[in-house]
Amino acid sequence: MADALVDLRSDTVTKPTPGMRRAMADAEVGDDVYGEDPSIRALEERMAQALGHEAGLFVPSGTMGNQIGLRLVCEPGQEVLCDSEAHIVTYEMGAAAVLFGISTRTVVSDGGRLDAAQLIEQVRPHGNWHLTATAAVAVENTHNRGGGLVQPLDQLQALWDWSRQAGVNVHLDGARLFNASVATGIDMATYGRLADTASVCLSKGLGAPVGSVVVASAERIAAGRLWRKRLGGGMRQAGVLAAACLYALDHHVDRLAEDHEHAQLLAKRLGVDPATVDTNIVRLDGVPAPVVAEAAKARGVLVSQTSAHRLRLVTNLGVDRADVERAADVLAELLDR
Amino acid sequence: MADALVDLRSDTVTKPTPGMRRAMADAEVGDDVYGEDPSIRALEERMAQALGHEAGLFVPSGTMGNQIGLRLVCEPGQEVLCDSEAHIVTYEMGAAAVLFGISTRTVVSDGGRLDAAQLIEQVRPHGNWHLTATAAVAVENTHNRGGGLVQPLDQLQALWDWSRQAGVNVHLDGARLFNASVATGIDMATYGRLADTASVCLSKGLGAPVGSVVVASAERIAAGRLWRKRLGGGMRQAGVLAAACLYALDHHVDRLAEDHEHAQLLAKRLGVDPATVDTNIVRLDGVPAPVVAEAAKARGVLVSQTSAHRLRLVTNLGVDRADVERAADVLAELLDR
Amino acid sequence: MADALVDLRSDTVTKPTPGMRRAMADAEVGDDVYGEDPSIRALEERMAQALGHEAGLFVPSGTMGNQIGLRLVCEPGQEVLCDSEAHIVTYEMGAAAVLFGISTRTVVSDGGRLDAAQLIEQVRPHGNWHLTATAAVAVENTHNRGGGLVQPLDQLQALWDWSRQAGVNVHLDGARLFNASVATGIDMATYGRLADTASVCLSKGLGAPVGSVVVASAERIAAGRLWRKRLGGGMRQAGVLAAACLYALDHHVDRLAEDHEHAQLLAKRLGVDPATVDTNIVRLDGVPAPVVAEAAKARGVLVSQTSAHRLRLVTNLGVDRADVERAADVLAELLDR
Amino acid sequence: MADALVDLRSDTVTKPTPGMRRAMADAEVGDDVYGEDPSIRALEERMAQALGHEAGLFVPSGTMGNQIGLRLVCEPGQEVLCDSEAHIVTYEMGAAAVLFGISTRTVVSDGGRLDAAQLIEQVRPHGNWHLTATAAVAVENTHNRGGGLVQPLDQLQALWDWSRQAGVNVHLDGARLFNASVATGIDMATYGRLADTASVCLSKGLGAPVGSVVVASAERIAAGRLWRKRLGGGMRQAGVLAAACLYALDHHVDRLAEDHEHAQLLAKRLGVDPATVDTNIVRLDGVPAPVVAEAAKARGVLVSQTSAHRLRLVTNLGVDRADVERAADVLAELLDR
Repeated sequence: MADALVDLRSDTVTKPTPGMRRAMADAEVGDDVYGEDPSIRALEERMAQALGHEAGLFVPSGTMGNQIGLRLVCEPGQEVLCDSEAHIVTYEMGAAAVLFGISTRTVVSDGGRLDAAQLIEQVRPHGNWHLTATAAVAVENTHNRGGGLVQPLDQLQALWDWSRQAGVNVHLDGARLFNASVATGIDMATYGRLADTASVCLSKGLGAPVGSVVVASAERIAAGRLWRKRLGGGMRQAGVLAAACLYALDHHVDRLAEDHEHAQLLAKRLGVDPATVDTNIVRLDGVPAPVVAEAAKARGVLVSQTSAHRLRLVTNLGVDRADVERAADVLAELLDR
Repeated sequence: MADALVDLRSDTVTKPTPGMRRAMADAEVGDDVYGEDPSIRALEERMAQALGHEAGLFVPSGTMGNQIGLRLVCEPGQEVLCDSEAHIVTYEMGAAAVLFGISTRTVVSDGGRLDAAQLIEQVRPHGNWHLTATAAVAVENTHNRGGGLVQPLDQLQALWDWSRQAGVNVHLDGARLFNASVATGIDMATYGRLADTASVCLSKGLGAPVGSVVVASAERIAAGRLWRKRLGGGMRQAGVLAAACLYALDHHVDRLAEDHEHAQLLAKRLGVDPATVDTNIVRLDGVPAPVVAEAAKARGVLVSQTSAHRLRLVTNLGVDRADVERAADVLAELLDR
Repeated sequence: MADALVDLRSDTVTKPTPGMRRAMADAEVGDDVYGEDPSIRALEERMAQALGHEAGLFVPSGTMGNQIGLRLVCEPGQEVLCDSEAHIVTYEMGAAAVLFGISTRTVVSDGGRLDAAQLIEQVRPHGNWHLTATAAVAVENTHNRGGGLVQPLDQLQALWDWSRQAGVNVHLDGARLFNASVATGIDMATYGRLADTASVCLSKGLGAPVGSVVVASAERIAAGRLWRKRLGGGMRQAGVLAAACLYALDHHVDRLAEDHEHAQLLAKRLGVDPATVDTNIVRLDGVPAPVVAEAAKARGVLVSQTSAHRLRLVTNLGVDRADVERAADVLAELLDR
Repeated sequence: MADALVDLRSDTVTKPTPGMRRAMADAEVGDDVYGEDPSIRALEERMAQALGHEAGLFVPSGTMGNQIGLRLVCEPGQEVLCDSEAHIVTYEMGAAAVLFGISTRTVVSDGGRLDAAQLIEQVRPHGNWHLTATAAVAVENTHNRGGGLVQPLDQLQALWDWSRQAGVNVHLDGARLFNASVATGIDMATYGRLADTASVCLSKGLGAPVGSVVVASAERIAAGRLWRKRLGGGMRQAGVLAAACLYALDHHVDRLAEDHEHAQLLAKRLGVDPATVDTNIVRLDGVPAPVVAEAAKARGVLVSQTSAHRLRLVTNLGVDRADVERAADVLAELLDR
């Protein structure tokens, strides 16, 4: 029975709750291409405020949020610097190059952990017609392929302080920034203010069906609105989606702590060092990933393979403690841990 | 009072009905990026079948539907030929060039009406390394800036027959194809089969809040799915939107005839030749557009200005006969017609 | 024997003369990527002055000259308006879209002849977020596919005057502007001043082996220099090419009048209305082009086929009066004219 | 007096010799856009053969050679992997992203030295719709910013062997491959055969004024010819340039050994470890670059600053042993070495 599955593949797989569905059904809406959808407006303003920025823009996916964010801090022919495992270079299908003519250059980091000095050393200056100028540095927090790693605040601050003097922009891929904030107790705005553009996703841990918001200065967001239309991201009565996001903001932020506890529980049961689990993602390394994933699926537990020897488990809204224990049992047995 | 407004600016402004909202609240959903949303799948299959194609792809906007459709029939460096008032060259912000490196070349048509021979004469052959090859011809049906004009079936057929021999693709921008079908009684599939790729929009006359579908061969749609992700159009539990679209397909297609009647009523009352009104759009030419639009707004009637001397009225799901009569009264008085 | 061929395919086929070769062998050169090639500088300055602009940029082809010119007056996502037979949309392989994300929209003109009002009517305003903004209008003078047609000065002036008020830029594709100037006696600068950016080609009628120059304001050319490097057009001791161009400017401009006389002679002998031959191109319409071209080639006369029923003859530096008479004899006999 | 300068900024600054100038003046030429320039053809064939490939394509710059090479092994939306100091990501102004929508991802290497395993570890597989696929790995030999470093043959071979199984392409940026070959005695073809596409530059150490050649399979080069035209790299009687390149191949290859000796001499005199100087580039680290460069210039010695603390000296055709000794004297005194 499908409902009996414990789905740990991603926190994107969650389905809207009854309360969230009611919020959608009751949503006040308008034509957002005309700027007339009150739910969208409310969500955009709320996220801008939460992240300490002037304005926000609702987009249909995390990818579009990141890409518009990058375009707002980088011109065609310039480059964005980031780590080699960042979502923007791994999972967004070369969008920055294809859509905007933006180059990427990367460093191999320590498991996704931001080392400001390592990035700064790679930056190429503007105003030298020989060189491809580094317009922006992008940071992912929490870091997906880094196993939900929370970026160290001192490194974020160091990068930001440097960037103000260097004339280089900072983009924050905050798809899972809520997880970072809940895990550390550091305010979203504290993170948000250390970036020129930031994107957050409401359809990951928060459980909304669809929606990300990119925040920046009012001027940048005005330009971003045009880019959104050009990319085909201009939606009409999208307030039905925003209503679910607003509901998630009201009801599903604090509970991320549960997901984090569940991840700790899985780590302990499966012999993973809990210190490597900052938030809601657990990585099982050195396992025959395809075999284990297949066997777990046969027993009702879904996990992701991120390489031939690595599995990824992501705790989420749709998985309660009993599910987590069941998953732990199944995997512990399969892995003989 | 906002609700008292008669909004004739566009058929995109309609808000979801109570029944549609219930359908959304009850939608069966999954993660569509994983291909697991049953409502999305049902909608994609239904639209593919309705248009006589193998497969469909749900996208967040008409613009994305058209752009992906164009990409599937045209390579970077090739060109698409269309009329100079087509939505794809007028309202999509140069997306084909920006996103895909696709050129456009246009002819000035007779008010948007397809003249197959006129387009064919402009086609440039493949296989001549000197020339920018014409990979596709795009047709818009009904034609937005052509005042909701229904394209003549014989011209569509002539273009299609020619295209099969010429090795040129045809893209159908069918954002308002439902209107064409209802107005003429010609089956959607009859239109759909005269194109290699076609897009239809569910959030115009049908009144769904968000959603378009592009249809084509299964192979093309598989490629389109990757392009959708690259453009940031990959959404998660988008079934909440698809459910509204499916509801619209069940309940709002036949009633487009009412919109068409309402448009005829407006035309008659406002001295517009009813023969120029094929579907749900009425154009008032030779009027001081800004002044009239402002004055009408003050009396609760919203219309679009499409040039300094032209107003556009679009009948839609949110406007009943009484609204139409009221709008006709207001405009007739303002225009002294 | 190859030397005995009369090559009327194009004026691009001319080979450097002995004097030109000596000029190349003696050229003073430097590294132009460092801005140190004196011959390049001299050519850029000379062309800028000749066309009434501040600065010039040497590029390896007419295509690169036009494309950089377009980029300097149009941003990604905006459009350039031109006639449907213009070189930039016909022979440049969709470069504007591919390289820069610039859209093109076209009108079908009367054989390439500029009708300012026809273009102006198609312009879409800036500052309307709905519309693809028309950033520039492009004019080709003389018009290649228009049979070497010289654009009417009053129309160029009308377009320019309008453009100043409308905030729309004008690009002049002046690949064969020398021919227009020699044919009409109108100064190059008179034409050049009616455009924001202009390109001229030295390897067409003037007979230099390689080289075009794009002219504009100093600020635009500085930006163009970066674009040239990005496109791979930055050459080192390109002064060897510039020296040939400078030689051509000194020795081959006035003699274009001979090419024009030769074209008149061909027209008369071949029953073409001489009034349709403004400069050095003669079109033979209504002929079985492949058959005639093949037969002429067998008799030592090379011509171009521009469609199945049209041949193009282009008089040039490599073709003297005796050659022209011989070509006329051959073609007259083949065509029974 | 300008001639008295010793110019060590780059090997691109060399001026054509008298013999080379004569070769240009006597060049047999034709219209290369029509494929009729015999000197171009001869050069393309000669370079293809020299590198062990089927076909070659003449282009106006090293940048265009690399970019076309990359396009032939990578589709829009895919990525090229290389080291972070590679010319293609450092000095080509983001061209791959702008022109072709190709992404780059990089690793920080040990001074530019190829470590095949380090790159292979970063490769992302095809056929996973989640991931940005790595279509190609690019290697630079010799490595410009690596100080003229020659890549180890065993690493090139290891990369190549792996790539055949992995279905990943290899592009060789061989702008200075002649230097590598002369320094090691390894045949150009031995290097060339370890790549799917390779570019070599004739206007660096070989001293031709303009020209690079990209080599690959005949099928790829046919596609590359179209890309060259689209980029504006199609030139007419470019044989005048090819003749200089052919002359350079006949007369200037073996003498690269002199440049290498000169570099060794500079290294010894300036306290640089000669083991770090593989070919014709010497780097002076830990020096106040702007001050020294300025003072050297005042004494007639030109050098490059590649960072605030690094100078670059490049020996070349225009610098004989006396010049080198003079430069060594000047710099040794300024640096007190």
